[in-house]
Amino acid sequence: MNIDMIRAAAGRLDGHARQTPLLNSPFLDEIAGRRVWVKPECLQHTGSFKFRGAYAALSALGKEDRARGVIAFSSGNHAQGVAYAARLHGTSAVIVMPSDAPALKVANTRAYGAQVVLYDRDTESREEIGERLSTERGLTLIRPFDEPQVIAGQGTCGLEIARQAAENGIERADVIVCCGGGGLTSGIALALEAEAPGLRVRPAEPEGFDDVARSQQAGTIQRNTATSGNICDAIITPQPGDITWPVIQRLCGPGLVVSETDALRAMAHAWNRLKVTAEPGGAVALAAALFRGDQIEGDDVIVTISGGNVDAPMFARALDTL
Amino acid sequence: MNIDMIRAAAGRLDGHARQTPLLNSPFLDEIAGRRVWVKPECLQHTGSFKFRGAYAALSALGKEDRARGVIAFSSGNHAQGVAYAARLHGTSAVIVMPSDAPALKVANTRAYGAQVVLYDRDTESREEIGERLSTERGLTLIRPFDEPQVIAGQGTCGLEIARQAAENGIERADVIVCCGGGGLTSGIALALEAEAPGLRVRPAEPEGFDDVARSQQAGTIQRNTATSGNICDAIITPQPGDITWPVIQRLCGPGLVVSETDALRAMAHAWNRLKVTAEPGGAVALAAALFRGDQIEGDDVIVTISGGNVDAPMFARALDTL
Repeated sequence: MNIDMIRAAAGRLDGHARQTPLLNSPFLDEIAGRRVWVKPECLQHTGSFKFRGAYAALSALGKEDRARGVIAFSSGNHAQGVAYAARLHGTSAVIVMPSDAPALKVANTRAYGAQVVLYDRDTESREEIGERLSTERGLTLIRPFDEPQVIAGQGTCGLEIARQAAENGIERADVIVCCGGGGLTSGIALALEAEAPGLRVRPAEPEGFDDVARSQQAGTIQRNTATSGNICDAIITPQPGDITWPVIQRLCGPGLVVSETDALRAMAHAWNRLKVTAEPGGAVALAAALFRGDQIEGDDVIVTISGGNVDAPMFARALDTL
Repeated sequence: MNIDMIRAAAGRLDGHARQTPLLNSPFLDEIAGRRVWVKPECLQHTGSFKFRGAYAALSALGKEDRARGVIAFSSGNHAQGVAYAARLHGTSAVIVMPSDAPALKVANTRAYGAQVVLYDRDTESREEIGERLSTERGLTLIRPFDEPQVIAGQGTCGLEIARQAAENGIERADVIVCCGGGGLTSGIALALEAEAPGLRVRPAEPEGFDDVARSQQAGTIQRNTATSGNICDAIITPQPGDITWPVIQRLCGPGLVVSETDALRAMAHAWNRLKVTAEPGGAVALAAALFRGDQIEGDDVIVTISGGNVDAPMFARALDTL
């Protein structure tokens, strides 16, 4: 896992993934007490950064493997990313999804042409189901985060942040990244280490699911006790990955933890001031920038909005906080 | 009014206005029956394309005129654009706004540092108020659309569309533009005439306020009978402008007219599929592309989302259409 893989992924994604803009608003700056720069990956294809890693992984496969098709297990955003990346590559995708995933995510994944296999989050292991289907049908398993080519794809977001920060004269800043298994976090961290060493990644997580922040404090991998029961479903994972964790441990500053309410408030501000749609898990980094300013240093802070795939009733809850 | 003024404005806006992306979604393509490309000017500074024209006009002023300050009358988006452009130029702005303008727009205009003067849309003339204050205080009046430098600024959006269409291999297409007084419409039309002659602008308007479409049919300027009473408040104007109309007449294809309900539905689709916020008036072009496909030709259609400054209750009405 190194910067060369990220640069190579950027070459393969060129013309296929969107280069998302870097947005700001004086209203957000006022709330945060510093300049807030937002990387809205909700504007990426399929509504989340996951398209980057999925496309990077698909495009790295050999011709024959790619033709046999791919399989993925995901709470939703990785599913949509893999489904659409498979379609763009002219191949098939099987997606293993939890039966309690948001209806929109299941419907979208099917609409992108993938076959969806549902499983029970509490009684079944998605990893086992994925491995079994992979073996039976000769499909290539594309893991959601603990996969070098996937991390390389997510890291292309970091290359863009490095360039956009330089264009805006930002040399030193915390870069707060919505963190589940750590694919986006470690990918961006590796990209910034090489291209913008004055920018430091800090993971953001929901309260009660702060396995990464606690792992950083403990110095070893810590698990979450629960694996569901939070509106930030997109970034709920049992623990950091075997590949992502050492990168996070080496390169990232302390994790930030936010409440569900603050995630909803950040969604409302992103809608009101930036005109973009964040899902709860996609809003935790912005929530940290806006409402945990005492834990951040410097005149600038950069945050990712990692995704925007949210149902209308949940979005209405967010707007009610305005 | 010519392409050189638009190119000069693009030079002055470089690094100050955002170059908005060109978004698409297979889900929107499916509804429209052709590829739909969306230019989301809601992501522009202050939430609408109006920032382009305002910044272009401010930056074209002589040093002394600019120092004395500017004045504008506007239903809201031009107000915010002028207020923020004035702030970025370190000068002051007085904004004359209708007393029934959305609360968010009034509040935002004040928050950008402008002095807001309210007037009654039914009994007072904003033009007279603007001229009087302009004369009394030595302020430069920045008209919302019938002003060459403002049109030049809006035209920079057309330069971007020309480049982005070429990048996506689009040589021939209708470019549907949300149309009030015609500043954005005529600016984009002039830019495309020079840079992408296979792209043809078509104005989009709300039912009952289709002065431009009727003017095109009649061959002379037609007025709207009402000047309020439609949720598409941002693009409600009495008639096309003296400068914008000849450009529209010469360069644009037939106008498209959409209902309030279809504007709300288009807002919901933009939120759901592109993750961006459109206001009702900003969604009429997308509504035309999605729901008036029988009046459009070709494999591709390009639309603007002209703005995203909408109150939460109105946005909830849009999401209810999903």
